[in-house]
Amino acid sequence: MAQKTHRVVFQPDGRTLNVRAGQTILEAARAAGIPMESPCGGKGTCGGCRVIIPRDAPPPSAACRRELSGEEIRRQMRLACRVRIDRDLRVVIPEETRLGDQKILTEGVERNVALAPNVRKVAVHLPPPSVSDQRADGERLLDALAEKGLPDLTIDVKTARDLPERLRSLEFHPAVVVIGDEVVHLDRPGATEACYGMAFDIGTTTLVGYLTDLTTGRVVAVASRANPQTAYGDDVIARIEYCGREKNGARTLQTLVIDAMNEMAAEACRRADIKPSVVYEVTMVGNTTMNHLLLRLPVTQIARAPFVAASAAAHSVAARDVGLRIHPLGRLYTAPLIASFVGADTVGVILATGMHEGDALRLALDIGTNGEIVLGTGQRLLACSTAAGPAFEGARIRYGMRAATGAIDRVDLEGDKLILHTIDDAPAAGLCGTGLIDAVAAMVEGGVLGANGRMRAAADGVAGRPALARRLVGGDGETAFLLADKKETESGHPILLTQQDVREVQLAKGAMAAGVEMLLEEFGAEIGDVEEVLLAGAFGNFIRPDRALAIGLLPRVPAGKVKFVGNAAGAGARMLLANRHLREVADDVARGVEHVELSQRPDFQARFADAMFFPAGKT
Amino acid sequence: MAQKTHRVVFQPDGRTLNVRAGQTILEAARAAGIPMESPCGGKGTCGGCRVIIPRDAPPPSAACRRELSGEEIRRQMRLACRVRIDRDLRVVIPEETRLGDQKILTEGVERNVALAPNVRKVAVHLPPPSVSDQRADGERLLDALAEKGLPDLTIDVKTARDLPERLRSLEFHPAVVVIGDEVVHLDRPGATEACYGMAFDIGTTTLVGYLTDLTTGRVVAVASRANPQTAYGDDVIARIEYCGREKNGARTLQTLVIDAMNEMAAEACRRADIKPSVVYEVTMVGNTTMNHLLLRLPVTQIARAPFVAASAAAHSVAARDVGLRIHPLGRLYTAPLIASFVGADTVGVILATGMHEGDALRLALDIGTNGEIVLGTGQRLLACSTAAGPAFEGARIRYGMRAATGAIDRVDLEGDKLILHTIDDAPAAGLCGTGLIDAVAAMVEGGVLGANGRMRAAADGVAGRPALARRLVGGDGETAFLLADKKETESGHPILLTQQDVREVQLAKGAMAAGVEMLLEEFGAEIGDVEEVLLAGAFGNFIRPDRALAIGLLPRVPAGKVKFVGNAAGAGARMLLANRHLREVADDVARGVEHVELSQRPDFQARFADAMFFPAGKT
Repeated sequence: MAQKTHRVVFQPDGRTLNVRAGQTILEAARAAGIPMESPCGGKGTCGGCRVIIPRDAPPPSAACRRELSGEEIRRQMRLACRVRIDRDLRVVIPEETRLGDQKILTEGVERNVALAPNVRKVAVHLPPPSVSDQRADGERLLDALAEKGLPDLTIDVKTARDLPERLRSLEFHPAVVVIGDEVVHLDRPGATEACYGMAFDIGTTTLVGYLTDLTTGRVVAVASRANPQTAYGDDVIARIEYCGREKNGARTLQTLVIDAMNEMAAEACRRADIKPSVVYEVTMVGNTTMNHLLLRLPVTQIARAPFVAASAAAHSVAARDVGLRIHPLGRLYTAPLIASFVGADTVGVILATGMHEGDALRLALDIGTNGEIVLGTGQRLLACSTAAGPAFEGARIRYGMRAATGAIDRVDLEGDKLILHTIDDAPAAGLCGTGLIDAVAAMVEGGVLGANGRMRAAADGVAGRPALARRLVGGDGETAFLLADKKETESGHPILLTQQDVREVQLAKGAMAAGVEMLLEEFGAEIGDVEEVLLAGAFGNFIRPDRALAIGLLPRVPAGKVKFVGNAAGAGARMLLANRHLREVADDVARGVEHVELSQRPDFQARFADAMFFPAGKT
Repeated sequence: MAQKTHRVVFQPDGRTLNVRAGQTILEAARAAGIPMESPCGGKGTCGGCRVIIPRDAPPPSAACRRELSGEEIRRQMRLACRVRIDRDLRVVIPEETRLGDQKILTEGVERNVALAPNVRKVAVHLPPPSVSDQRADGERLLDALAEKGLPDLTIDVKTARDLPERLRSLEFHPAVVVIGDEVVHLDRPGATEACYGMAFDIGTTTLVGYLTDLTTGRVVAVASRANPQTAYGDDVIARIEYCGREKNGARTLQTLVIDAMNEMAAEACRRADIKPSVVYEVTMVGNTTMNHLLLRLPVTQIARAPFVAASAAAHSVAARDVGLRIHPLGRLYTAPLIASFVGADTVGVILATGMHEGDALRLALDIGTNGEIVLGTGQRLLACSTAAGPAFEGARIRYGMRAATGAIDRVDLEGDKLILHTIDDAPAAGLCGTGLIDAVAAMVEGGVLGANGRMRAAADGVAGRPALARRLVGGDGETAFLLADKKETESGHPILLTQQDVREVQLAKGAMAAGVEMLLEEFGAEIGDVEEVLLAGAFGNFIRPDRALAIGLLPRVPAGKVKFVGNAAGAGARMLLANRHLREVADDVARGVEHVELSQRPDFQARFADAMFFPAGKT
């Protein structure tokens, strides 16, 4: 298709533009200045960019079928990033897709946050000095700001140095940028609207940044990246070891993540058509290691008993001091930490889910390389971390991979037939975390795995499931289960799930389950008392609760109690950007949460061993 | 005299040491670790280092005779800096000479200041971390400090970066340096005593620095220098013009003063035998231009109508950021300003004299290149500055000079004979400020000058004073008065006081007197209501009140109401170093004082013209 253009009308805005054929609806919406949810950055994996194409909708793509319900597809809902424009279109953007409501949305959880950002940009008119009003420029400005309802501010010396010239060139009518209690910059009077911040969720594996208009609280662009530190280790322990081994290791890792954040900020600014110099503040949540590497705090003592952080406090530093390229006098706020392995990301989850408020007993699980678990009510919150291991992120699994094209992401058992699904319907390339859970669940259900996780020997067969039995390969000690045969795979080699893989899953789910049990016991509650189980994090988002319940990764609660809260950590970072008062709440949460060190509990090992068993299978 | 040594016993301490013959008592006292007052740095010009030598005192030197009363000399009092040790001696150091009482002493004014410095150094014992106490290093430290009565502190990221290693190398038993609310450094546990600050009075002409032990409040060494910026202009206007003219002018002046401050700090530390790295804070008072140059704030707008400062607020900045070489994380506190020509030095004078407290109506005069005048009570304070001109500092006077060796510093009229005195009894080299006042007073008294300041023509003679008449030289328009003939001078040329010189004195004293009148009028008081006239500054210290009254430099009050308060500005800087709570008082003072801009008063010029007249002479 050549450089043909089509006319697209966005509703309810009514904005119309001509777009090049072949562009996606998401790209066209960005070009039209309509910000849309797209946490995955347009890869078709997050389901954020739902739009309705009322007439003549294209057939749903594989990604649409995966992300949307049958009912949604019938309503002509599609993913904007997956629809390439090949005709004139009318596109309706539902409220849920539109970014930047002051409500901070995460799937299933919605928190109202008053807009009270730490950065304010206020236009003031100053009376020019005269011989009868000789107040210094600084005091004149502070007096005017106090009259505007911003009392008790100070002016940094760096800002004061430019003040006389700036004030006069702006004819005593500046737009004043205030960060916290400090005047940092004087902009043109018309520039009060140009006031942005960016909230980052710095994960071990994934970085997400939300560029936010601080005058409205709306997210105007989202950027994400794989954490480039991954090249130096899949998990935080490996990265800490790298820092201990290499003289400039910590500096290398710091530079990598800062460079990525700068790229993300630049990309988001480009999309929103603003300059990075009107981004005045960055907020960040991340685990303790990510936090310390970013701030250039030492990390080696985190990984050595007794495992302590250098500083658990929130910090506010000059963005420039850590290498962030936003406004030269902009600030970086890092949210406080709970413990060495329960970081600011968990504080973000608590803030976003409101677990620190109300009387309901709730349980939040953030399943990743480390599994963080929070249990409690507004009166008392407990948290622990478990070394769940990176099995669900594809590591330490023979054919494990990330959730990318070709990954087996769903496995269903119909009778004794396995139904596989791969991302983008591509030939199978490996097994991602959700596929792994599904596969193990199917093997438990089909009687291939015993409650102790032992795979039946190929010679023994599987009662009543001859097709399944045929998938068992290898002799004793090396038994494996054939998931995809060579005809189904990209490489032409079969994809197997080994006994060792099952053991990894057992370790991971056992650690999570034992952690939940320990917290329940410490709290003095039973699992039946828990009113909601909140699944946080990108991975948690894709889990099918019945399968996770089937293998015992989730505690035994009715599936209706399980709620997906998406990237709640990132939502926490956005809340801390939108409302400075929440920073005190975050401090209280970080210091108030009781950290339970599982390794110190004499009965943890026994429970862990118990929890590695699968719930009784159907054999 | 060869390398002979003598035994010196200092009392009341009883410290004894053998000193090289030829050293001064001041040097010996420093060597014995006994800090003594010596604001002039041992030049014999301040009279600070008074000691008593009960037996066998050497004959009083010229400096002793100048600085000490006859009664004091009879009591065997001498200046420690002027006595070279040539025999075994017993030396009594009076309390007034001993430095570092927590009372901040200035001559005639004494203020009790509670020791509550902004810098604290506290030894704490932390419980080392364990698996059952995994608090982060930062929170562990803050908790321990809170238990010691220092709650709500924070740890700067820069400090946190070293924290894990420092804490462990100090076995969790550090001496913690806290500046303001921030932990900045961890020292060895035995180093709590090593905690110093330095208070600077940065004058247009002279710099004085007081190195202070912050654990006792005592000044342990004083250093002073001529302000090296003088090479770029005698007064602030000339320096501001230099900055406007030369691209890097402001930077040049900033570097000069910082270099001098660093030298002074190094010198004081050497004398006190401490390292500059245990100096954690510097406080500074100075006029607005000195303040702005030091902080690299722009100055050109100060000298242009409507004469405004960039920032009048107190600032606390990293000492390193302005180039001060104290502890790498040390701070510089600059006291707040009142107006463009009424600076932090005036705030210091007010704090040191307590003018902001009590009901007594008091008047403070700081006579220098600019004369600052403060009038009022604890309820209301007014201040103004007058362009007194640098006449009293020796500038713009034909034979003017600073108060150095050979300067005519006293002139007495006995009958019709002039009795001259020069500093160090050296041959006359010129005329310093006090000599200038005395000479003019003598000329008024002797009838050489009319009330309008006109010098009698040589041809007209002086009624009843033939010897004075003979001193009148030159024709009309160029009349001059011979002070020292060529036999009395160093150069072999006579020293004259010209008609133009007299005009300069009239301008200077007229400006001061008119300023006092304007403030009295604004306050609604008469000169008779004033209970005390406080003379501040190095120059004010040496004025003879009767002479200053005779020429009308001081308002007509009984001489008993005149009080010398010495370097009250410097005393203010010391108070702000010793007690952080006074910084809030300083803010209130700086913002509360009403600045009266004389040039705006329609009647100022008329009063100024009137005030240039001399009080009726005795002719």
